[in-house]
Amino acid sequence: MSNYSGYNFIGSARSAEGDVVLKSKNATTGLDLTPSFYQATQSEVDAACQLSALAFPFYNKLPATRRAEFLNKIADELDMLKEDFVSLVEQETALDKARIKGECGRTSNQMRLFAEVLLRGDYYDARIDRAKPNRQPIPRTDIRQCRLGLGPVVVFGASNFPLAFSTAGGDTASALAAGCPVVFKAHSGHMGTAEQVALAILRAAKETSMPEGVFSMVFGSGVGEALVKHPAMKAVGFTGSLHGGKAICDMAAARPHPIPVFAEMSSINPVVLLPQALSKRGDTIASQLSDSVVLGVGQFCTNPGVVIGVRSPGFTTFVNKLTAEMLSKPNKSMLNSGTLKSYQKGCETLIAHPGVKVLSAAQGSDNEATNYLFQGDAELLLSGDKLLQEEVFGPATVVIEAKDQQELLDCISAMHGQLTATVIGESDELLESTVLISLLEEKAGRVLINGYPTGVEVCDSMVHGGPFPATSDSRGTSVGTLAIDRFLRPHCFQNYPDSLLPDALRNSNPLNIMRLVDGVKTDSAI
Amino acid sequence: MSNYSGYNFIGSARSAEGDVVLKSKNATTGLDLTPSFYQATQSEVDAACQLSALAFPFYNKLPATRRAEFLNKIADELDMLKEDFVSLVEQETALDKARIKGECGRTSNQMRLFAEVLLRGDYYDARIDRAKPNRQPIPRTDIRQCRLGLGPVVVFGASNFPLAFSTAGGDTASALAAGCPVVFKAHSGHMGTAEQVALAILRAAKETSMPEGVFSMVFGSGVGEALVKHPAMKAVGFTGSLHGGKAICDMAAARPHPIPVFAEMSSINPVVLLPQALSKRGDTIASQLSDSVVLGVGQFCTNPGVVIGVRSPGFTTFVNKLTAEMLSKPNKSMLNSGTLKSYQKGCETLIAHPGVKVLSAAQGSDNEATNYLFQGDAELLLSGDKLLQEEVFGPATVVIEAKDQQELLDCISAMHGQLTATVIGESDELLESTVLISLLEEKAGRVLINGYPTGVEVCDSMVHGGPFPATSDSRGTSVGTLAIDRFLRPHCFQNYPDSLLPDALRNSNPLNIMRLVDGVKTDSAI
Repeated sequence: MSNYSGYNFIGSARSAEGDVVLKSKNATTGLDLTPSFYQATQSEVDAACQLSALAFPFYNKLPATRRAEFLNKIADELDMLKEDFVSLVEQETALDKARIKGECGRTSNQMRLFAEVLLRGDYYDARIDRAKPNRQPIPRTDIRQCRLGLGPVVVFGASNFPLAFSTAGGDTASALAAGCPVVFKAHSGHMGTAEQVALAILRAAKETSMPEGVFSMVFGSGVGEALVKHPAMKAVGFTGSLHGGKAICDMAAARPHPIPVFAEMSSINPVVLLPQALSKRGDTIASQLSDSVVLGVGQFCTNPGVVIGVRSPGFTTFVNKLTAEMLSKPNKSMLNSGTLKSYQKGCETLIAHPGVKVLSAAQGSDNEATNYLFQGDAELLLSGDKLLQEEVFGPATVVIEAKDQQELLDCISAMHGQLTATVIGESDELLESTVLISLLEEKAGRVLINGYPTGVEVCDSMVHGGPFPATSDSRGTSVGTLAIDRFLRPHCFQNYPDSLLPDALRNSNPLNIMRLVDGVKTDSAI
Repeated sequence: MSNYSGYNFIGSARSAEGDVVLKSKNATTGLDLTPSFYQATQSEVDAACQLSALAFPFYNKLPATRRAEFLNKIADELDMLKEDFVSLVEQETALDKARIKGECGRTSNQMRLFAEVLLRGDYYDARIDRAKPNRQPIPRTDIRQCRLGLGPVVVFGASNFPLAFSTAGGDTASALAAGCPVVFKAHSGHMGTAEQVALAILRAAKETSMPEGVFSMVFGSGVGEALVKHPAMKAVGFTGSLHGGKAICDMAAARPHPIPVFAEMSSINPVVLLPQALSKRGDTIASQLSDSVVLGVGQFCTNPGVVIGVRSPGFTTFVNKLTAEMLSKPNKSMLNSGTLKSYQKGCETLIAHPGVKVLSAAQGSDNEATNYLFQGDAELLLSGDKLLQEEVFGPATVVIEAKDQQELLDCISAMHGQLTATVIGESDELLESTVLISLLEEKAGRVLINGYPTGVEVCDSMVHGGPFPATSDSRGTSVGTLAIDRFLRPHCFQNYPDSLLPDALRNSNPLNIMRLVDGVKTDSAI
């Protein structure tokens, strides 16, 4: 490892001006890891932001092919990280090696997918309305439009995906693809991992001759505010708690020049079980659903937090089976002691509530998260009780028994915005559930039929977003290629000489992309 | 006119529960017009919002062809408005009849353009990633995405476009196209106009069997806050002052569940003059530019508020010519006494500032706006003085003489976000001005070469948006077909049976639209 290990990254330069020293912890033992990390000072944050602003006009104007080269090179660099890197991630997060390797592959593939988006060129949304010099009563001049990067973006790393939602994760990939330099705030839970990934990004930047400042990274718990408030920064990507996300949204809105924030925050991901499915395959559903609840120690934004069905003997049998399944799952270590404490607190609040009973709580060691199955009164949802509206991040879920179909619909209506909603049912009953499914589509960014919400595919069609509080803006997604839209703005070029237009809008269509020309999609030159 | 004239519209029902009575004024004489308008009560606002929420699931699920029918019918109804309507608008706004007729045509054409967007189908942004059941290590399930309406939208009417940015204006048209019912807040400056247009919309809604509540309209100066804070409302469109727009953004962000606001607010629309153009055609530019400044009594969001060039004999000659041109223009009445007062106050502040001198101020009657040409020190821009950063809404502009090219660039750098920026130059000097043009592209939503910013074409390529404070979110536009994006959100359908998918995503591609299937654009069935 580098001599400067633990220093902040101001572009490719390393800096440790401050006195506050932070330690990364072994997630399983709680012991300090080496090296120490230096919390960025205000002046280091300022330097990183200023540098990103200097890089922006050059980086934003680079041909998309060059940015694609950069992203592909980052992917290659990530793929070259070795076993010692995997061990480091394991130490910092307590995630198992198979998961870490899988997540690393997902992260490099995500970079490559955004490179493909750049080459495909539809992200430009190129539009051309040609001049109509003879139009009456007034002529129309030539007007063209394509999308440009917003400007430098602040990205916050998430604790639960040290790779795929962190230093080189989806927010960074989509911002870099959009032409926006990134200043990254490393999560305190995996600073060593973040440093190694940042080094990989910077090797790729050097190898592909990207402008200095295209990527910076700072450490420290107090630096987020300075980043969000910095005038050079033009957008924010965040994945984390409702509390943290809301604070960032408020800060961004209170700037003299407010900037957009995409914050992915809190979701309880309801799973609705229909009766025919329960009677036909209740045991299988119980087994699969419990797997989904405890997968990755429940540390997924799409973890199923509420399971809901209509009262029936079949539902009772299912709940009993689910209870047994949950009891059979081994408890495991969480990402860090903070996450564990927060989970324990959430579970204690549920346990203490008179409307909630514990169905299953497997005992384990103090350092592990207990897998919990709760049953809650439908009234808790109907009355809008905060208890069931906010995510308890960890391997727990709450079963709700509605007295009839109408009460089930009322429960769903009372729910806040979600990342996902799931319906499990047989063909016939699904076709009769259009009201239910429509309602879920209003509530969530993604609705799954006969699946489980954990496991978010990185592809063109994915939406990892949804109405508040799932995210701060349901018009965006932080997973999938549409994530690039958050960091682009349309720009209109009126009456430009051809040679001053960006390639996407030139008459000869040198990029050979689809464009909307006088209202018709075409890849022809004009 | 209807017996209920002056009543609020709760869907198609008329309601006048309140005691507060408002008068529309004759813009030229200041005298009250009949009838009286009833300020909506809290319960009327609530009823309108609740009704829009009831209408939403039905309206949002209607085939796009049906919504297109509705928009086209609104256009037809607008086109049928007769001379008495034009006279009413003229009385309320002091705009001349030719302008009113032109704006009416623009408004109905805008509706028809959004109907075309619905039929073209690219607004769905349909994406399909087919299942890969044999993928290793885990299979991929079928994942599809298209865009849905956000929910009911609050739209605020603008004073300066009683038709094109009001009741049936661009925000309403794009929201209705997106599948979002609209609750419209009529501007107090033209309530009679608003009522007639609302009646036209509701006739169209009835004739095309739209759900009750697809459109409502309320009167009253205090009702905006109640609309923005109403839990049923999911987005806001606003055109008006920086002060008003910022207040709405803050209210929307402070809701328990924040909603997006697109507020188009303040822009000074810099015009940069290059030396060769000035020496070659300075007189023509002076004549055209002064026409643009006083067009519509300067009451355009894109009115050129700052004219900037580098010191030279040619620039001095140009400024003298512009002064003479401005003096020659007749003063005219503004939209209402509030607009006039606000304009006079803005001009007085400029006059009082030691860094500003008056070049031209044609005297006229007290009820008319004086056409003003000012000259301001470059230092005012360089130091970030608020004076030149905020729009003075009316027929005034400020000339700035930069001492050299670098100072000109520094002046532009110091400017806030703009709707438009303009460069006037000859071919050669334009090609040498890439740094300047890039900088303007960063600052504005639209850059014009050799044109004038007033006159915003309604087309696919238009951007009437830009960085703060031009708008609250530079990723949107309120003019042109891209305006629909503000009111759409992506939704992901995972593992759906074909019959439960929206038409845009069905295997057979019944809408015959372009879709991104496994990363390739195609209109084939799958």
